Amino acid sequence: MESQDVFHHFSPDGRPHMVDVSEKAVTTRVAVAEAHIRMSRATRDAIVHQAVGKGDVMKVAEIAGIMAAKRTSDLIPLCHPVPLHHVSVRMEEHAVEADEAVFRVRAEVRTAHQTGVEMEALTAASIAALTVYDMCKKADRGMTISNVRLVLKDGGASGRYERSDSGGSHGG
Amino acid sequence: MESQDVFHHFSPDGRPHMVDVSEKAVTTRVAVAEAHIRMSRATRDAIVHQAVGKGDVMKVAEIAGIMAAKRTSDLIPLCHPVPLHHVSVRMEEHAVEADEAVFRVRAEVRTAHQTGVEMEALTAASIAALTVYDMCKKADRGMTISNVRLVLKDGGASGRYERSDSGGSHGG
Amino acid sequence: MESQDVFHHFSPDGRPHMVDVSEKAVTTRVAVAEAHIRMSRATRDAIVHQAVGKGDVMKVAEIAGIMAAKRTSDLIPLCHPVPLHHVSVRMEEHAVEADEAVFRVRAEVRTAHQTGVEMEALTAASIAALTVYDMCKKADRGMTISNVRLVLKDGGASGRYERSDSGGSHGG
Amino acid sequence: MESQDVFHHFSPDGRPHMVDVSEKAVTTRVAVAEAHIRMSRATRDAIVHQAVGKGDVMKVAEIAGIMAAKRTSDLIPLCHPVPLHHVSVRMEEHAVEADEAVFRVRAEVRTAHQTGVEMEALTAASIAALTVYDMCKKADRGMTISNVRLVLKDGGASGRYERSDSGGSHGG
Amino acid sequence: MESQDVFHHFSPDGRPHMVDVSEKAVTTRVAVAEAHIRMSRATRDAIVHQAVGKGDVMKVAEIAGIMAAKRTSDLIPLCHPVPLHHVSVRMEEHAVEADEAVFRVRAEVRTAHQTGVEMEALTAASIAALTVYDMCKKADRGMTISNVRLVLKDGGASGRYERSDSGGSHGG
Amino acid sequence: MESQDVFHHFSPDGRPHMVDVSEKAVTTRVAVAEAHIRMSRATRDAIVHQAVGKGDVMKVAEIAGIMAAKRTSDLIPLCHPVPLHHVSVRMEEHAVEADEAVFRVRAEVRTAHQTGVEMEALTAASIAALTVYDMCKKADRGMTISNVRLVLKDGGASGRYERSDSGGSHGG
Repeated sequence: MESQDVFHHFSPDGRPHMVDVSEKAVTTRVAVAEAHIRMSRATRDAIVHQAVGKGDVMKVAEIAGIMAAKRTSDLIPLCHPVPLHHVSVRMEEHAVEADEAVFRVRAEVRTAHQTGVEMEALTAASIAALTVYDMCKKADRGMTISNVRLVLKDGGASGRYERSDSGGSHGG
Repeated sequence: MESQDVFHHFSPDGRPHMVDVSEKAVTTRVAVAEAHIRMSRATRDAIVHQAVGKGDVMKVAEIAGIMAAKRTSDLIPLCHPVPLHHVSVRMEEHAVEADEAVFRVRAEVRTAHQTGVEMEALTAASIAALTVYDMCKKADRGMTISNVRLVLKDGGASGRYERSDSGGSHGG
Repeated sequence: MESQDVFHHFSPDGRPHMVDVSEKAVTTRVAVAEAHIRMSRATRDAIVHQAVGKGDVMKVAEIAGIMAAKRTSDLIPLCHPVPLHHVSVRMEEHAVEADEAVFRVRAEVRTAHQTGVEMEALTAASIAALTVYDMCKKADRGMTISNVRLVLKDGGASGRYERSDSGGSHGG
Repeated sequence: MESQDVFHHFSPDGRPHMVDVSEKAVTTRVAVAEAHIRMSRATRDAIVHQAVGKGDVMKVAEIAGIMAAKRTSDLIPLCHPVPLHHVSVRMEEHAVEADEAVFRVRAEVRTAHQTGVEMEALTAASIAALTVYDMCKKADRGMTISNVRLVLKDGGASGRYERSDSGGSHGG
Repeated sequence: MESQDVFHHFSPDGRPHMVDVSEKAVTTRVAVAEAHIRMSRATRDAIVHQAVGKGDVMKVAEIAGIMAAKRTSDLIPLCHPVPLHHVSVRMEEHAVEADEAVFRVRAEVRTAHQTGVEMEALTAASIAALTVYDMCKKADRGMTISNVRLVLKDGGASGRYERSDSGGSHGG
Repeated sequence: MESQDVFHHFSPDGRPHMVDVSEKAVTTRVAVAEAHIRMSRATRDAIVHQAVGKGDVMKVAEIAGIMAAKRTSDLIPLCHPVPLHHVSVRMEEHAVEADEAVFRVRAEVRTAHQTGVEMEALTAASIAALTVYDMCKKADRGMTISNVRLVLKDGGASGRYERSDSGGSHGG
């Protein structure tokens, strides 16, 4: 792996820039990313069984994730603004143990553009997870977000990438 | 733990709302949060040793984190807008192994307000880490962000919280 | 009523400006605003009885309204940025007839500042109502938003204002 | 009318998402929306006859509406970001009576994209009307916004829609 | 002048951060900044004498400047978010010659906070001037903005600063 | 030069609007703009020679400029939102004298769209220069930004424009 492969955000003299994608083809692109949120069992129970209706915390988180996908280029300095064609964010139970539980957020983003939408999917998953933290933090400050990672991308010159295994290389 | 403790973002009839902090005291508040980014050794080497000057990826990430702290209430639906008094974001090497390496981002935020700044610190750490992903993703799509968590908070009625151990309860 | 009373947003020589509130007292302020959305009975039934769970359209609209309250000073040119202490947005059925139905959105905002929060409440109610339009527009383009109005304000030098009657003066 | 027609913003299992428009054709699209603002006659006179130059309140409102059109996808959670080709916002006198008067704001938006721009036009009209409220609220807190509605849309698979009558079905 | 005086935005080890103002007093603060726009005489004449009413370009620019003041901390990475108490932006003719003319934009901002509002005033003046460029660029691409500078600041520990002379030290 | 050439942002009856570009061709477009910052020699020395590493102030400014380019249509009222293909911002020493020095910021923006990107380049250069002011203002309040101007544009029906001379017509 050569440096210029890694640092495509830097111009030849080392200055940060938003890379020129003028010559890249407009193709359909999709990206799927996820994030895990580990919490106490009591917090999980409160999310799932609360009297006021199952799914509320999850709904707010999903909407926050969708809206965050649209703000990605405002947040990530060298990320191109992209007109998104589709965004969905799902929060689901992933594991429930005696003392702890894990929810998983999965975000999918589609566009037809010169650049991919990995950052939009990762940002959506991250902000959805942070929204869960915000809504439950009073009772459980130890909640931890992990496994923020790209699950799949397709489209564009670099082709398809699919994470071989959820616990795979560089996995947290 | 009772439900109303967890779901302070919901009103008695279960509707989401931004909780009323009118009666809370304006006190000095601080929060420290962190995030880890696991990557291939080659990517770490490129970040650290690149010819164009050490620290560039880290600098962009740190600035992105600082700016994101200021956007927190735009991103997290039920988070109060807060006039921040101080924000710093540091990215440092945390572990270097033969094949992989981990950087740690640590964000510290201060204010004097009726609400805490945990979400600002967590958002800053997350966006800084996502910025690293963005800048290196062409070479290493398997990078994973984990341990997004609150390290410390102080000030306000709920007092001081300090995570006992980096690998502690609910840790990812 | 003299012109300078009306046009407090204009300086003596007629230039628009954000009025100086330096001399005003920091007091607790509250504002309540509402908006009505008239739609076909079929659209109302779909919102209320849908298989996927009652309240989804309403939940998205309520969250959109809360988030919009925080963006008010970005949208209304001469509106002061205000640190909000509380925002709630509720959407409820107001009238159901054979062919048509009306939902009402009610937004409440609180702060302690030199200026009131009427615009935040009105913006929250408007954007929540527009969100309902967005989510149902494919089936019912004739939906209409009306009665966007201030219901109550209190706090500050101008004291309490309460709309005498929902169908009252200047009512739409 | 079936539920899936109404709730195209929900996926088959009831989760909110930004609908996938990848397969839709890029066509020229236009939307026209309006909003009415009812106020006291004195407020209307102050707007129209003020010494500092007719049209100032109206100019600020028109500019606010144009800028709001560009922020629509930041405000409406499931609305696609769209590169706009044209936006105009006009505020005009609609009716003048002894005690009251009504101004009408009309917003027109054009694009060439996979989605329509109804929400952009409606948001522009709403924010322009709210800007009038903001600038005159000190003297006339009873001002009311109504008839926020789509007047016309054209382009795209669903074809042309034109409101048959300004006081027509679902009219407020 | 020592380095730590200049680089108060850098922490002792050289990392950028938003400086901690927790210990600074909340005092009334004001800042006045200006910008000049040089253009062809024909462009100036079109701005001043246009049939549609004098002042339109100037009005749009003034409003843009006011709104930009509120976005300052979103744009300047290490700038604190500040609740503004007053903003005014004026655009006036400064010099008219046979071939060229100069307009001057002057922005005034007030707050009561731990930090000053110099950046808000400078940003308001700059964006107002850029708005003039945008509105007239089709006919006069050679327009130039200069003398973007602080005219006055007062309040805070560093006291009063007043530029001695418009053509003074470091003047452009 | 006729008025309608200058005021293409106004409709025939003098109302501000975002001009309709539906009929314009999508072509590759580039714009280069610059800004100069004059400061004391001591400030320049501190920027260039500081112990914590040359280039830090410049790096923060460059990133701020890149991010500002993406916010241009939020700031300039009648500017079209444009999906940018490339942005780079460079800050370099331009002149060093005994008592004063000048840095030059140069911003380059590319897209393929119906409108040009002059405003994006000018906004990037301006905000980068303001960021330098912000970071050094404590020591040198007299810093002045000048020569904010378009250096080059190409693409689109109006063809190529290149400023003949850096000190040329209308130069500041």
